[in-house]
Amino acid sequence: MSTAEFDLIARIRARVASRDDVVLGIGDDAALLQVPAGQQLVVSMDTLNLGVHFPEDTAPADIGWKALAVNLSDLAAMGAAPAWCTLSLSMPQADAAFVDGFLDGFLALAQQHAVALVGGDTTRGPLSVCVTVHGFVEPGMALRRDAARVGDDLWVSGTLGDAAAALVQWKAGAKGGQSGLSFAKGHSDPLLLARLNRPTPRVALGRALRGIALACVDVSDGLLADIGHVCETSGVGAQVDIDALPASEALRTVFDRQTRHGLQATGGDDYELCFTASPDVRDAIEAASRDTTTAVTRIGVIVATPGVTARTAEGAWSAPAAGWVHFS
Amino acid sequence: MSTAEFDLIARIRARVASRDDVVLGIGDDAALLQVPAGQQLVVSMDTLNLGVHFPEDTAPADIGWKALAVNLSDLAAMGAAPAWCTLSLSMPQADAAFVDGFLDGFLALAQQHAVALVGGDTTRGPLSVCVTVHGFVEPGMALRRDAARVGDDLWVSGTLGDAAAALVQWKAGAKGGQSGLSFAKGHSDPLLLARLNRPTPRVALGRALRGIALACVDVSDGLLADIGHVCETSGVGAQVDIDALPASEALRTVFDRQTRHGLQATGGDDYELCFTASPDVRDAIEAASRDTTTAVTRIGVIVATPGVTARTAEGAWSAPAAGWVHFS
Repeated sequence: MSTAEFDLIARIRARVASRDDVVLGIGDDAALLQVPAGQQLVVSMDTLNLGVHFPEDTAPADIGWKALAVNLSDLAAMGAAPAWCTLSLSMPQADAAFVDGFLDGFLALAQQHAVALVGGDTTRGPLSVCVTVHGFVEPGMALRRDAARVGDDLWVSGTLGDAAAALVQWKAGAKGGQSGLSFAKGHSDPLLLARLNRPTPRVALGRALRGIALACVDVSDGLLADIGHVCETSGVGAQVDIDALPASEALRTVFDRQTRHGLQATGGDDYELCFTASPDVRDAIEAASRDTTTAVTRIGVIVATPGVTARTAEGAWSAPAAGWVHFS
Repeated sequence: MSTAEFDLIARIRARVASRDDVVLGIGDDAALLQVPAGQQLVVSMDTLNLGVHFPEDTAPADIGWKALAVNLSDLAAMGAAPAWCTLSLSMPQADAAFVDGFLDGFLALAQQHAVALVGGDTTRGPLSVCVTVHGFVEPGMALRRDAARVGDDLWVSGTLGDAAAALVQWKAGAKGGQSGLSFAKGHSDPLLLARLNRPTPRVALGRALRGIALACVDVSDGLLADIGHVCETSGVGAQVDIDALPASEALRTVFDRQTRHGLQATGGDDYELCFTASPDVRDAIEAASRDTTTAVTRIGVIVATPGVTARTAEGAWSAPAAGWVHFS
């Protein structure tokens, strides 16, 4: 293939939707954008690298979806409304078929959240996708990591451990000599795999929690690690009830209780929201959950003693391995 | 090395400056930022990959400087005032010494332009630097590519061809069996090399040209190619006087006229501003040049016939090679 960068950009530009607040999108040195009066700008940036953040044989559409999803998840964790994104796509060679597939996933999710792709670049290099997302939130309404208070309930959305379980299966399959996402016999589970490749950013829930929840983080590094970030920033601690962690039917079917607990507590990559709130607003949180058709589960409490402790009915619980740490 | 991502982020966070309009910077799921009332947001994103955008042995501080410079240059080409940036840094392993050196260059330039680093990520992968910059411009005042008009003067800032000349020297040195930036004997030129590794984004000039210049682009792909982008977007053509292209003393000393012309017209990577303006405002442009101590040179005119033509005193001039095209 020998398509020039300009052709790839034209290919991308032909497919992107716009918004009224995009004054000038793809095609100039920079995008011109209009932030609504009375709103603060919310910006996050995350990169996915081949072999680090997605397995070798991941479908281009799944890479596209996930690259935007992990960024939208950061906006969700702030309670922000997504608006725009920029995309930097590095590829070993200009591959129009890859770009088309990538856009299928990327733009499908963008459309769900009315996000306009307004700029970026395509360039030569090892496969890597960097996305910056922009959203809005009213001053003082953002859900920050530093707002947890002693006595808060600790909540989490959706189910935990599914993405990590799919990765375990993928590795087992790979070890068994099978390539890519064809798992070893008896271990393939499309529901878990969908959670790894097509995470659902909890944007609607994050929006609904403004003014109700206090601190919030998205679960990317692993539940206990991410709760640790909130606690450290807020100057508090947390007690987590491992038995209460929500598990999908698929996860319960495939893994025993002990393995499941490890995946749920430390797996990461689920992109659920973990948040704290006063016990006084439990009804409001249940209402937000119903309104956004996003399950939420109480999984612990915020305490004064620093650190994150976890327990089951049998007593103290220790993670079998650390959460996902880059460079470890 | 086995420093965790969190340690690298802490290392970065400890060194960044803030601004009054940064409500929340590094350390949460996203940054919270306040765009001034009455201003539009200007956003650009560019990636530099090892071996594609900078040679293997480039010093970390130069990589840091250049990664921000190429992005600020895009803001300059819009006439925007820089404000914030985010940084995604991929490295094969967590290398604190590399990060420290990288920040030396990156933050030195950020400080010059009062740009606050407000977020991003560090991750494992082949060496790659992705930066998104944010700035402001008043509605209707941006210098766009689509605003060139027939009869406009064509201008360029600074000098052309220096960065490409340094790269030619570097390649010659590399071919001569020498590694990195030690050029073959007689070919090393620190002034040219500085232009390749430490480009100067023409931010002040871009700001001063608001309301005076019409179309503008920064010269990254190569002068004629970038003028071509302006012409295509504006629905016009251009005639370029190759003899008029500004050359540095260093370039004149090292290369003959023919080679120099090729480097100036197609070399790219100089990050000068190329802009159009009515002949009626020549005095205002000279004043903007003086006020910002940035040389400007008239190099041609905008015409009705589509396409970019170039000539010297001897007649029509053709580029010896295409401008810099990724994936070619």
